[in-house]
Amino acid sequence: MRLSKTFVKTLREAPKDETAANGALLTRAGYIHKEMAGVYDFLPLGLRVLENIKNIIREELNKLDCEEVIMSALQNPEPWEKTGRFSDQEVDIWFKTELSAGGTLGLAPTHEEPMIEMVKKYVSSYKDLPFSVYQFQNKFRNELRAKSGILRGREFLMKDLYSFHTSEEDLDKFYAKVEGAYARIFERVGLGESTFETFASGGIFSKFSHEYQTFLPVGEDTVYYNKDKSLVLNKEVFEDEVLEEFGVNKADFEETTGAEVGNIFKLKFKYSEPLGLKYIDEGNSQQIVYMGCYGIGVSRLMGVIVEKFADEKGLVWPEAVAPFKYYLVGIGEDGERKAAELYAGHEDEIILDDRDLRPGAKFADSELMGIPYRVVVSEKTLAKDSAEITERSTGKTSMIKLDKLSFIK
Amino acid sequence: MRLSKTFVKTLREAPKDETAANGALLTRAGYIHKEMAGVYDFLPLGLRVLENIKNIIREELNKLDCEEVIMSALQNPEPWEKTGRFSDQEVDIWFKTELSAGGTLGLAPTHEEPMIEMVKKYVSSYKDLPFSVYQFQNKFRNELRAKSGILRGREFLMKDLYSFHTSEEDLDKFYAKVEGAYARIFERVGLGESTFETFASGGIFSKFSHEYQTFLPVGEDTVYYNKDKSLVLNKEVFEDEVLEEFGVNKADFEETTGAEVGNIFKLKFKYSEPLGLKYIDEGNSQQIVYMGCYGIGVSRLMGVIVEKFADEKGLVWPEAVAPFKYYLVGIGEDGERKAAELYAGHEDEIILDDRDLRPGAKFADSELMGIPYRVVVSEKTLAKDSAEITERSTGKTSMIKLDKLSFIK
Repeated sequence: MRLSKTFVKTLREAPKDETAANGALLTRAGYIHKEMAGVYDFLPLGLRVLENIKNIIREELNKLDCEEVIMSALQNPEPWEKTGRFSDQEVDIWFKTELSAGGTLGLAPTHEEPMIEMVKKYVSSYKDLPFSVYQFQNKFRNELRAKSGILRGREFLMKDLYSFHTSEEDLDKFYAKVEGAYARIFERVGLGESTFETFASGGIFSKFSHEYQTFLPVGEDTVYYNKDKSLVLNKEVFEDEVLEEFGVNKADFEETTGAEVGNIFKLKFKYSEPLGLKYIDEGNSQQIVYMGCYGIGVSRLMGVIVEKFADEKGLVWPEAVAPFKYYLVGIGEDGERKAAELYAGHEDEIILDDRDLRPGAKFADSELMGIPYRVVVSEKTLAKDSAEITERSTGKTSMIKLDKLSFIK
Repeated sequence: MRLSKTFVKTLREAPKDETAANGALLTRAGYIHKEMAGVYDFLPLGLRVLENIKNIIREELNKLDCEEVIMSALQNPEPWEKTGRFSDQEVDIWFKTELSAGGTLGLAPTHEEPMIEMVKKYVSSYKDLPFSVYQFQNKFRNELRAKSGILRGREFLMKDLYSFHTSEEDLDKFYAKVEGAYARIFERVGLGESTFETFASGGIFSKFSHEYQTFLPVGEDTVYYNKDKSLVLNKEVFEDEVLEEFGVNKADFEETTGAEVGNIFKLKFKYSEPLGLKYIDEGNSQQIVYMGCYGIGVSRLMGVIVEKFADEKGLVWPEAVAPFKYYLVGIGEDGERKAAELYAGHEDEIILDDRDLRPGAKFADSELMGIPYRVVVSEKTLAKDSAEITERSTGKTSMIKLDKLSFIK
């Protein structure tokens, strides 16, 4: 990407209507544009980060033979009425709208009901199970307040996965595989050390559900952490009865705050029963399908990564999610010529800052944008057949021979 | 993709609520699932076709230095009120919804207004122009009727591109480049011969706009075609005055029907003026930005491809958009073993039909799904170190040496 060509610019001042650090920094650095509280557009750099996160999730889910689809936002009330969830009393964050042809529609805040209706068409025998289906899709939630940047959206990108099984054992087995995939996903996006599978309340059908909480000062959830046992409990289950079960005391925990970046849930019959998702077993009798559901807030995850790593100079992206790996600056005529040469053929890895600006302003933008490596070529470095390379996360600068730069084949 | 593993099945019967051929065939073949009239989910095969079309469009637009973003569906009324387009009298296909925190929102039927608001932040001088921005995004249109399968959606995928210029000449130059890109796109998806740039009414700021019409019996538009001059006019401009301008007579045209797969439009100041998108020119005076907009209905295009090529046996995908290139069937123990061997490492190109079904049923599904090449290995073919390969579009069958199969490296 040539900065002289892109329409987006970094902004010197933080936007006035943005109280969250992630929203302010991503706006200043040219990654997002705010439409209204909780509703954001993703600019070229922001879209690249989202796609990188999506691809990591996709790779890990495809390893489990999960199948990708894309469902609609507009929702027919019918299946939701069967589970009682179309009611605004039951689910208080619906956006609803009227169809010209008559009738009320909803904008999907999640997709259990339509997903079950869809797979019903294909499930009749035990031979049709198990399977799992996921999508990356915008969810709509009519939140009363949305002041946390992309951490809490009224329209936001989610990965939602649903699994279907003939037995609790098979559900448990798949659930464990998803736990493994989630651990790898959070590791790969750079949050492995700060993200914990957390016990949370499970509703009617399970004692517990699991949340993935990234410890973060601005996180909205209160969680309790027992370092020795690597055990994390959401406040909602931090009770004597539960602690007893784990053989621990309240005193063994420290309180902290987390941002929920994912959750996984053994639904069992919760939605498959009211919606009539059944199959014929080997003994020819009808059975209800066991289900699990597994979410990751993709745009929220992007916001959490920002909050976790940003410093006073701006964003700091882990390499795996960074929109580009290198930020290339040429100083002086020779430096600029060499930079253009190095850039050619590597447009997908490098931001070339070929704007008519002082080097200092370019360096500041490379830091604000959080690109992992800044590479500078100038008369001075070229005299040694070298470039100066600075790592964003540590600030460490070193000289590197041009033929050692990894984007030079 | 192993058919024994996917949750989707082909259906023997056409769905009762689907009058359009594209909707019925895509449903039977397991590409889409209908949520309600004009609202569809895309199953794994359908999603792959959409992604293939998107990638072709993306490649052609990126060659013109267009920049990709993704904007929100939820719309703040404010910018739309400035152009008068939030009014249901003016635009009669809005879905509107209420925000809990107060106020009415819309679901974007198109994105000129928010796009202009967004780029305003970055445009101040002539040096900031020209540029162009596009997205693949679901549009919402509250159509009274939607009976054409994925040809007319209430929620549908569109590519919308917007360009910004300092002069009419520069707009014209870019517009011509988009015409070239569009010709390549329709060519690449297999509709080159049947898709025509068509003169349509231009509104206030231009004499004409251009539509891209694919000639199709079920197309909703009436168009007039002059073969000698390769000139196509939409009914709305098929008038003596216009014909005179082109030096032709009504008698030189034949009437036919077309499906509008794209349109391009020189907006000039139409929206940039009411929304105040201005810049300072070289002489230090304020000017209004010239704009163009350029759409392609991505999911509609998929439906048009279906309608164009399908035959009595099912779908027929052009190679460039097909979800998989090969449909592989092994017959007998040796054939099945060889098929599994050939499949390994080529999961992204091949559908392996490893279901416990008669070969005839597999062949019928390969035709219904429209996969370009069916490859069969059996004892008989293996005796000659060969496979039998059948081209879906022509039905031609031939023997091919195993080491000549292009998916074998």
